[in-house]
Order: sequence, then C-alpha cells, then structure tokens
Amino acid sequence: MGDTSRWRLDVAYRGTSFHGFAAQPGLVTVAGELQRSIATVCRLAEPPILTCAGRTDAGVHATAQVVHVELPTPLPPGRDGTEWSSDDLVRNLNKLLPEAVRVLDATTVSPSFDARHSARWRRYRYLIHEALVAEPLLSELAWHVPGPLDVRAMAQAVGSLIGSHDFRAFCRKVPGTSPGDPIIRLVTEATVAVVPDPGVVDLAQGRLIRIEIQASSFCHQMVRSIVGQLVEVGAGRSNAAELVALLRSQSRQGAARPAPAAGLCLIGVGYDAEVTDGGAGLLEGPNDA
Amino acid sequence: MGDTSRWRLDVAYRGTSFHGFAAQPGLVTVAGELQRSIATVCRLAEPPILTCAGRTDAGVHATAQVVHVELPTPLPPGRDGTEWSSDDLVRNLNKLLPEAVRVLDATTVSPSFDARHSARWRRYRYLIHEALVAEPLLSELAWHVPGPLDVRAMAQAVGSLIGSHDFRAFCRKVPGTSPGDPIIRLVTEATVAVVPDPGVVDLAQGRLIRIEIQASSFCHQMVRSIVGQLVEVGAGRSNAAELVALLRSQSRQGAARPAPAAGLCLIGVGYDAEVTDGGAGLLEGPNDA
Repeated sequence: MGDTSRWRLDVAYRGTSFHGFAAQPGLVTVAGELQRSIATVCRLAEPPILTCAGRTDAGVHATAQVVHVELPTPLPPGRDGTEWSSDDLVRNLNKLLPEAVRVLDATTVSPSFDARHSARWRRYRYLIHEALVAEPLLSELAWHVPGPLDVRAMAQAVGSLIGSHDFRAFCRKVPGTSPGDPIIRLVTEATVAVVPDPGVVDLAQGRLIRIEIQASSFCHQMVRSIVGQLVEVGAGRSNAAELVALLRSQSRQGAARPAPAAGLCLIGVGYDAEVTDGGAGLLEGPNDA
Repeated sequence: MGDTSRWRLDVAYRGTSFHGFAAQPGLVTVAGELQRSIATVCRLAEPPILTCAGRTDAGVHATAQVVHVELPTPLPPGRDGTEWSSDDLVRNLNKLLPEAVRVLDATTVSPSFDARHSARWRRYRYLIHEALVAEPLLSELAWHVPGPLDVRAMAQAVGSLIGSHDFRAFCRKVPGTSPGDPIIRLVTEATVAVVPDPGVVDLAQGRLIRIEIQASSFCHQMVRSIVGQLVEVGAGRSNAAELVALLRSQSRQGAARPAPAAGLCLIGVGYDAEVTDGGAGLLEGPNDA
C-alpha cells in the first residue's frame, strides 16, 4: 500500500443477522461484511484490518459501534474524476453492505487514534419485556420475562456495581487467561428503569424495562451476566446483598445464566478529544460484552 | 360440531413473517397459523372459520388485532381432567404458534359479537425514520426516508382528512367493485408527530415520526396511500391543498405510491359495550388496510 490515512467509521447493525462482530472464516460477521465492502470500494487487494471499540457477540446489536481502519489516500476518484468526500465513502460502502449493517459516518482521524484502546468508556443497553405473553415485534430486541419483576429492587442491586471491582463472577472465561487473574473494570453508571413510552412499539400488554451500564470497558458477557442476576433479584429469588456477595466471591459458582443476546445493544463509545488527537490508549484488557 | 361458544381472541403478530392475515392455500398467513393451532388444541376435524377486525396485508404488523371464532363447549379437558380456563387456552395456543404470532387474550363473547362488523373503529400507526442513513434495528418496523421532512406541514395536511369522505383516491381498487362506487369512510383522528423518546431503539441519528389514523373502517391500503402522499407534502413536493384536491378528485391519478408495508401496525380496535353484548354490526364495507 502507498500513502494511507486512518479513518474512524461509526457503524450500526442488527446483531440477529451476524455471528458477532469479529471476522471468522466461513461465517457471516459484521467485520467480514465491512472488510468486503471496504476492499471493493477502495480497490484493495487484501481485506483491511479492522479494530472496533467493543467486540459484540452473535445476536448483540449496535447503534453506535466505532471502528478504525487504514485506507489509501487519496481515496479512489469517482466516475467523474472528482475526489470522494467522506459522504461519498459512506454512501458507496452502504451500497455494498447488507441492510443489517450501516456505516453512519466516516471521518479521518489522527494515526494514533485507536477505536479500542483510545476509548474512555462504552455504554450498553439491555431491554426486558415484562409481560405474560411475548410481543412478536420485540422478539429480536428484548428478552421476554413473564415477571412480575420488582424494578426498584433491580435498580438498587445494580447500583452496588458502580465503582472499580473485580468482575470475574460476571465474566465468561476468556481463553488464555488463568482463573486466578483479576478482571478489574470501572463501572461509572448503572440504571434500571421502566421505559415511559416504548415509542417504536405500542405494547398491548406488559412493560419495557431498560437497563443501562456504562464502564471503562467490559469483559466477555459482562452485561448479560449482570442482567441474568438482576432478573433473579427482580423475581424475588435473590437480592442486592446476594449480588454483592457474588461479586466479592470472584467466582461464577452460583451465578445466574447470562441473559439472551437479543436484548443487548452497544449504544455509545466515548473518546477524549486529546486522546482522539494523538494520545495512546490508557485502558487495557479485552473489551467483549 | 356439538355445542359451541363464540370466543374473542386478541392477537399480535410481526407482519414480516406472513403473507398477510387472510388464509391463502400454500402461503404462510396469520389466519392459517391460528387455524392450525386452534384445530389441534381444540381437537377439531376441520380448520375453524376466523373473522378479524382488519385484514392486514403482507408485511403489516398488529399489536391489537381482534378475531372471533366458534369453539366447542366445554373445551377439551386438560391432562388432569380439569376444565381449561381461558388462560390455559391462551397458553396452549401459543405453544403451537410460531413466535411471530401470539394470542394475548381469549374471552367468551355473545353469539352476536362479530370481530369485523361490531367494530366501531380501527386505529393504525405508521412509523417513518427520517435520517440520512437507515437504522438496521428499524428495518422491519419503519420506513426509512432520507428527508428532511416538514412535520408541521404533514400534520396540517393529515388534519384535512378528518371527517366523512369518499376515499377512492387513497384506496387500492377492491376486486368486485366498479370504479364509480363511492368508498365512504369516517376518519375521527389523524395525527403526525415526532416521537419524543424512541424507547426501544436508541437512534444514533435522525428522528422517528409517528402517524396515527383512527377511522370507522379503512379501505384497502388506505393508510399506506395517505402516508405516501404525506411524505410528498413533508418533502415539499406537494402541500395540504393538493392533498385535499386529490381527495376530492376521487381518483388515484396523480397520487403518490403507497408507503411500504413494514411501517404499518394495527394498534387498536374499538367496540361498544352494547354491541359486544348483542347488537348487530352497524358498519359495512371491506376493512383492509
């Protein structure tokens, strides 16, 4: 490759259509589709290397994933010979991508910007539809729980996760780590609330409960493990004290099953302006919710 | 069949999964799936006749469809020999139905209750996602329109449809009717508004516009035809006066293309208590949005 520039792509996708973000041979993945359309549009001989802010699992959605990639500069000229704007790049990538993934924005960034390591925080949302009967329009967007759930008890319990903790009890084991390794993460926000107006869907019955968690970074299946435990609390089978005890135990023994992937969505990633301009990443560790 | 009772079923479905409500040989339809599960659960030799409040087209959703059907009385006893409650009936029907259709409630009604003819009003909602780039999580729930759309102009235009009008300009021709036949419908509410909190989906860009129309009944593709015209108004290619002129022309000549099915959802059907108790239906005409 000759001269290159680093680009930041803001990406949204319906997780149901993909085997997760990370490219895997023979499987349809978000990264695989992005690589294919970028290679075609930018006339690359090889699929480009992509780095994302949060490597989402199969079935997990994103409205605000961030990716960085090196692209040749200048970009290939359009048919009329004029140089592409970033809007042209976005439009041309989306033409080749399946409907279930969209590039929302493309901007050139400093060569030191790293979608993963420069990220200061990630924010995930989890939706629960509490109702006697499931709502077909929500089947890919929310976890149906018959309930009843005590939302106040859930909100109190989730609040005890705020701060810096060893989240081993709420993480799926990462290959290559030993069980004794601490998994420290800083949770800065954690809320549970009933959605006042479900907006997109007019619920004939039940209610929609939204859980939002923001942290420096997340370990594997952390949000889904927390939500699984919170539903135990909401259903009265556990309580905030047991959740804290589980956190302190640093072990998955006795933990609830992680909540299903469909309810989860990556809704935000934050970067410092200085970091975006050039600072190296200060956060380490795998970021896979 | 021996003794029967008339039942009202409240039903929700994801229209994307079906070739519309009405049963059609060789196609997967909402009525076809309901008939199959009812016949099995109630041990009927033949699929039962179903009547619905609004015969939705392929791809159109419902959160509040109403259906009536005659079922044997008493219902078949459960495994333990006890008679089924209506909750048992709901649970057993849902066990056999595909996830994309759910029976929300089942109640016995007077033999004179008719899901279609006793209905006083139907209410439909149409969602538009106005944004530069489509949102993958909304692809089956909203129509993506790049915009910009003037929501105030759309709201003013839709208001002029309130009242009793001949809606031939906004109806797909119904087989068996002659072009000269008036198609009178009474629209009682019609609103266009930006959804303040999209609730289910955290939009990274753009906004969600919700159109709601309530009428005595609807003719075929009436809401979608109105929405197609409203988007012309919102985009500045037409205006409220032209919409009124089109309505008065009683002809589809010059009308916009109907909006796509995915944005449309049947969200309510109203019955008078007296009508539900025994009065015959006072409304006539096909009710197919």
